[in-house]
Amino acid sequence: MSPERLRALVGEIFVRAGMVEDNARTVADVLVWADLRGMGSHGVMRAPRYVELMRRGDLNGRPNITTTESGATITLDADRAAGPVAMVRATELAVAKARATGIALALVRSTTHTAAIGYYTQLGACSGMATIAITASIPNMAYHGARAAGVSTAPLSIAVPGDDEPLAVDMGSGVISIGKLAQARRSGERLAEGAALDQQGMPTTDARAAAIPLPLGGPKGSGLALLIECLSSLLAGNPILAEALEGTAKGKRHYQNALVIAIDVARFVPLEAFRTEVKRLARAIKALPAEPDTEILLPGERGRRNAAQHASDVPLPASVMEELRALATSLGVDLPA
Amino acid sequence: MSPERLRALVGEIFVRAGMVEDNARTVADVLVWADLRGMGSHGVMRAPRYVELMRRGDLNGRPNITTTESGATITLDADRAAGPVAMVRATELAVAKARATGIALALVRSTTHTAAIGYYTQLGACSGMATIAITASIPNMAYHGARAAGVSTAPLSIAVPGDDEPLAVDMGSGVISIGKLAQARRSGERLAEGAALDQQGMPTTDARAAAIPLPLGGPKGSGLALLIECLSSLLAGNPILAEALEGTAKGKRHYQNALVIAIDVARFVPLEAFRTEVKRLARAIKALPAEPDTEILLPGERGRRNAAQHASDVPLPASVMEELRALATSLGVDLPA
Repeated sequence: MSPERLRALVGEIFVRAGMVEDNARTVADVLVWADLRGMGSHGVMRAPRYVELMRRGDLNGRPNITTTESGATITLDADRAAGPVAMVRATELAVAKARATGIALALVRSTTHTAAIGYYTQLGACSGMATIAITASIPNMAYHGARAAGVSTAPLSIAVPGDDEPLAVDMGSGVISIGKLAQARRSGERLAEGAALDQQGMPTTDARAAAIPLPLGGPKGSGLALLIECLSSLLAGNPILAEALEGTAKGKRHYQNALVIAIDVARFVPLEAFRTEVKRLARAIKALPAEPDTEILLPGERGRRNAAQHASDVPLPASVMEELRALATSLGVDLPA
Repeated sequence: MSPERLRALVGEIFVRAGMVEDNARTVADVLVWADLRGMGSHGVMRAPRYVELMRRGDLNGRPNITTTESGATITLDADRAAGPVAMVRATELAVAKARATGIALALVRSTTHTAAIGYYTQLGACSGMATIAITASIPNMAYHGARAAGVSTAPLSIAVPGDDEPLAVDMGSGVISIGKLAQARRSGERLAEGAALDQQGMPTTDARAAAIPLPLGGPKGSGLALLIECLSSLLAGNPILAEALEGTAKGKRHYQNALVIAIDVARFVPLEAFRTEVKRLARAIKALPAEPDTEILLPGERGRRNAAQHASDVPLPASVMEELRALATSLGVDLPA
């Protein structure tokens, strides 16, 4: 299916489920972007889950997002808006503010699944901003030394303006992501040692038994994830981890928090000079001696190639397409031929 | 030796080598702090190297640090000041600015070895700021897929105000740090698989052959390190990696760049409420079911215990003490009894 048709289908599903149209369009755009980049785990396969969150009242399809500005900062109370809606808004506000102040911060309080955070940092980078984003979520990753989930696979993304497209890194703080763990479970492939624990907190390489990703670099990954919770959830006065670990009623519901920081490159060096230096650095890295049969890739390069290759046809597993069709039918959405 | 006497000795060494007294005091304080925390690789064992950098003209003991302020940003031209001197100044300026603007950025251009960056983020956190710091340095770590060093073990530190002391993470982007690699080389212990390459770019677990740390999580660690260069060196118009990889004359000299971001917690939530939530989160994490005989530690907790244990006596290897004595003697510094 073409990206345009897939966006239209997914957007229409969200509208029929009760989401206002411009929100539905934003969410569909961010999900299809992830599929195009080869990050299917953050793509339209999430649509059924988003609809389920709306039914439960955890995702608000008609949010009243309010913002408070103070100095070089903006706080968005997202009113349980879909993650992409709150994050695109936060990024746009941070970018606009940073043009005036050089650096700006947008703190996002009480949103839902944030989707691929690389979308937002690259949106900022396309506006000439070095952009940093982090997201806080439920405990789904082991804390170093613990036999249970204690922190989230809290992602961090950094993007800067590049030669043509931004140079961007987008990383979770776990050895393996929840999405890749689910993929391995389906395919039955063996996990690397040190990637995950089973439900009882014992190390396992059996993907079917694996339940809890281990943190990247042990204390580094779990420390980073813990500080991401502090920088977003605790700054927003909306803790996630403590509520969930203590088993409070609030902690049983789905909500996320996030932070976007935009830095106006042109305040420090001319934007074109910066782009030229990024290009020069990329060239030097790609010229490094490589392992046999290995091309040295820049962060984001594989995703960009995927997107170019699938410009007219989004690659979706049959099972995801089936789920989308069933969801569309159940909501009375006309299916494309 | 007591921390006070060690600080005095190291400070006097720097003064005799040509450093102005207040700079010497700052550098000695930051180095001894690392020794007290159990991070000897960033401690006073670096003193001979600092003196050598001064002799070469790479470290300026009498720097004229100039600052430019613009919006919520500050650029420090460090004039090759010792890293601790530039970083303490940058942190203080970022903290003061963030009190006015909510978030502030201090970009540090052309400094030298930055020492333990956790010192600066914790300095910011002690002033009520959530503080982020990154440092860019020479290519000393493999880029993912490459058989040579292409990026640095670029460190990232984040600290927030805590219950009594800050909660802080301080991580390099490599599987193993340059300091730990050197320690393993001395002790002859075996390295874990996937930690390092030898001089020829081949994987090795032999510490004596190991020369180049591998990046944490493959593309994640090297991507993070690459973006840290962009966010600090390229923003400062003072590239390090490209100069070194291209083998330019500039690229053969020692210099670093860094970035400090301070976020005024009290602008978002009352500082006391934030501290209470950090304490609550810490309690929930420490109560997680643990591996047998494993205590769950918070980031920075081991270092804090080390410091408390050695409050009156800094633990230094005999070889480091010998080097310090020789250096002191060569500079005509009176040795403590």
